[in-house]
Amino acid sequence: MGKGTNKQILLAETPKGKLSPSNFSSHEGQIPTAKDGEVLLKIKLISLDAANRAWMQGATYRSAVEAGTVMAGGAIAEVVESKASGFAVGDLVFADTGWQEYAALPAKQVQKMQKMDPLSHLLSVYGIAGLTAYHGLLDVGKPKVGDTVVVSAAAGSVGTIVGQIAKLKGCTVIGIAGGDEKCAMLKSDLGFDHAINYKKEPVGKALRAVTPKGIDVYFDNVGGDILEAVLFGMNNKGRIACCGAVSQYDGEAPAHGPRGIPGLIVVKRLTMQGFIVTDFIDQQEKALSDLQAWVKSGQIKVREDILDGLDNTPQALIGLLAGENIGKRMVRVS
Amino acid sequence: MGKGTNKQILLAETPKGKLSPSNFSSHEGQIPTAKDGEVLLKIKLISLDAANRAWMQGATYRSAVEAGTVMAGGAIAEVVESKASGFAVGDLVFADTGWQEYAALPAKQVQKMQKMDPLSHLLSVYGIAGLTAYHGLLDVGKPKVGDTVVVSAAAGSVGTIVGQIAKLKGCTVIGIAGGDEKCAMLKSDLGFDHAINYKKEPVGKALRAVTPKGIDVYFDNVGGDILEAVLFGMNNKGRIACCGAVSQYDGEAPAHGPRGIPGLIVVKRLTMQGFIVTDFIDQQEKALSDLQAWVKSGQIKVREDILDGLDNTPQALIGLLAGENIGKRMVRVS
Repeated sequence: MGKGTNKQILLAETPKGKLSPSNFSSHEGQIPTAKDGEVLLKIKLISLDAANRAWMQGATYRSAVEAGTVMAGGAIAEVVESKASGFAVGDLVFADTGWQEYAALPAKQVQKMQKMDPLSHLLSVYGIAGLTAYHGLLDVGKPKVGDTVVVSAAAGSVGTIVGQIAKLKGCTVIGIAGGDEKCAMLKSDLGFDHAINYKKEPVGKALRAVTPKGIDVYFDNVGGDILEAVLFGMNNKGRIACCGAVSQYDGEAPAHGPRGIPGLIVVKRLTMQGFIVTDFIDQQEKALSDLQAWVKSGQIKVREDILDGLDNTPQALIGLLAGENIGKRMVRVS
Repeated sequence: MGKGTNKQILLAETPKGKLSPSNFSSHEGQIPTAKDGEVLLKIKLISLDAANRAWMQGATYRSAVEAGTVMAGGAIAEVVESKASGFAVGDLVFADTGWQEYAALPAKQVQKMQKMDPLSHLLSVYGIAGLTAYHGLLDVGKPKVGDTVVVSAAAGSVGTIVGQIAKLKGCTVIGIAGGDEKCAMLKSDLGFDHAINYKKEPVGKALRAVTPKGIDVYFDNVGGDILEAVLFGMNNKGRIACCGAVSQYDGEAPAHGPRGIPGLIVVKRLTMQGFIVTDFIDQQEKALSDLQAWVKSGQIKVREDILDGLDNTPQALIGLLAGENIGKRMVRVS
C-alpha cells in the first residue's frame, strides 16, 4: 500500500460555541503504510457519538482531539495489510481510526470483531451503544422487577436499548425524547409505557403524571434541566446512572448543575454514579450473549440511522447533537 | 405534673432569607401531663444541627416545622413522669423534644440512653454527629489505606470526627474550615495532615497544592462552591459521601448545583451518594463500640461547644449556620 489518496476529515479548529461545519476541513492525504506490528485498515462504518463533541472540549477519559488533526472516532474496518501477528488481510476490526478512509494502527489498538450481517449491528446493539445500555442499566442503575425506570435521549442509540432491556426486566419504562415521531415510535414499536416530548411539554409535570409511584432508576444521557426535573421525582434510595450530559457538550464551558444537588441527593439518599462502558470490559462476553439472545427473540429491536459518504460525517455529528437521529447513527465510508 | 410553666421557643415565622432572631418567639406554656403510653420529659441538653435550618424550608426526611409551633430539635432529657411500660422516673432518653423545658411524648418516640459522664457525649461522639461521621465515612465513602480524604465543615461536630476516623484508618486527611483558629486546631490537636481556610484562599488551588495524588473520598457537609472545587480534584472512581449542604440551607431556594455535574461524574466515574444516619440503624451497636474504643484510646478527641440557657437556642443555631462553633454545639437547658 502507501499508494493512492486517503481522504480525511480534520478538526480544523476547536469549536468555541456550537459545533458547525466550518470547524472541520477536508484533506487529501496519502494511504499510509503498515509498519512492523501495525495493520492497515480500510474504514467501512464510522460511529457517531455525542461523546465525539465532548472530546473536543478537553481531556476526558481520553486526551482531547487537537485542532489540525484527523477527527477521532470509532469505526468498523477491514484489514487490508498486516504486519502484526494475529491479524490477516480480510479480518474485520473495531478501532479508533478517526474520520478517514484508511488508517495504519498498532495491533494493540485494534480489536478483532466477528463478521455478521448486518455489519452495522457491531456498532449499535453489539457495540459501545448496546454495551453501554446493558451495563449502565443493569450494573449501575440496578432496576428491580416493578421499578419505574426513566431514560433520556430515549430514541438515541443507547436509550432505545436501555428502555427495551428495562421492559424485559419487568419495569415500567418512561422515555424522554425530542419530537412526537420519536415518542410514538418508542411506545408503538419499542414497547415503552410512556414517552415525553421534552420540546413540547414541561418534563417535571409530565413525569409526575405518569410516575404515580415515583422514579426508582434514571438513566441520564443528557444532564441539565432534564436531570433536574427527574431529580425532584426520584424515590428515596433511587439510582441515577450518569452516562452522558449531551445538553452540556455543545457549548462553551460546563454549566452549573441542576438545582437541588446535593440537597436532594442527601434527603432522598440518592446514588449518582458515573460510568464508562470500558469499566465493564471483563463482563463483556455475558453482556453480548444476553444481547444476542434478546435480539434473536425479538425482545430487542435494533434501530439504526446510516448515512453515506465520509464527507457527510461532520453534518452527521452536528445533526446528532441536535437530536435528528433515531437509533444508532453511523456513516458508511466504503 | 401539669403544674408550673414550660418555657418554649416557637418558630414564629418561616424564614424567607437568612435566619434571624425575629423568626423565633418565646412562649410560656404549661407543663404537660403524660397520657397513657407517654412519658413526661425534662429537657437537659438540646442538640443544634445545621439540618434544623433545612427543616424550616419544607419536608425533608421529616415533615417541615410549621410557623407558630415549638421549634423541633433533638435533646437529651430525663423522665420525670412515666405512664409507659419500660420507662421509669430518672431514666435518661434521647428524643425530638423540641426547644422547650418539658415535653410529653409517646414512648415509641423516645429512645432510652445509657447514663454517662459527660452526658454531652451522648449528643456528640455517641450521638447523631458521631454516628453520621462513622457511617458516612466508612460505609458510604469507603476509604482505603493510603487514600486521600477531604472533609468540609471540618471543625464542626461531624467533620472533627470524620477526619480523625480517616486518620486512624490510614488515610491522608485534608480539612476545609472557615478560620485560621479552626485550621490550626485541626492540625495540631486532631492530627489532620492539612487544613484549608476557605475564607482566605481559593479552595481549588489550595487543594491541588496538598493533594498531589488527587482526592479519593470527599465527605461533603456543605455543597455549593466547595463541592465544585473538590469535584475537579477527584480521582477516577472517587466517592463523594453527601451528608449535608449547609451552604444551601440558609437562603430562599435550592441553588443550582456545582459546575461539571453530571459531566465530571461521568468522566471520572464518580459515585455521589446521599445518606441519613438512620439508614444505618441496624449497625449502630458496632459503630458505638468502635467509637467508644477510639475515644478511650485517645484516637478520637471530642470537641464540644456548650451554651447555657434555653433563651440562647435561636442565637446558637444562627451562630452555628455562620460557622462560629468548633465541634458539637448544644444548649444546656437544665
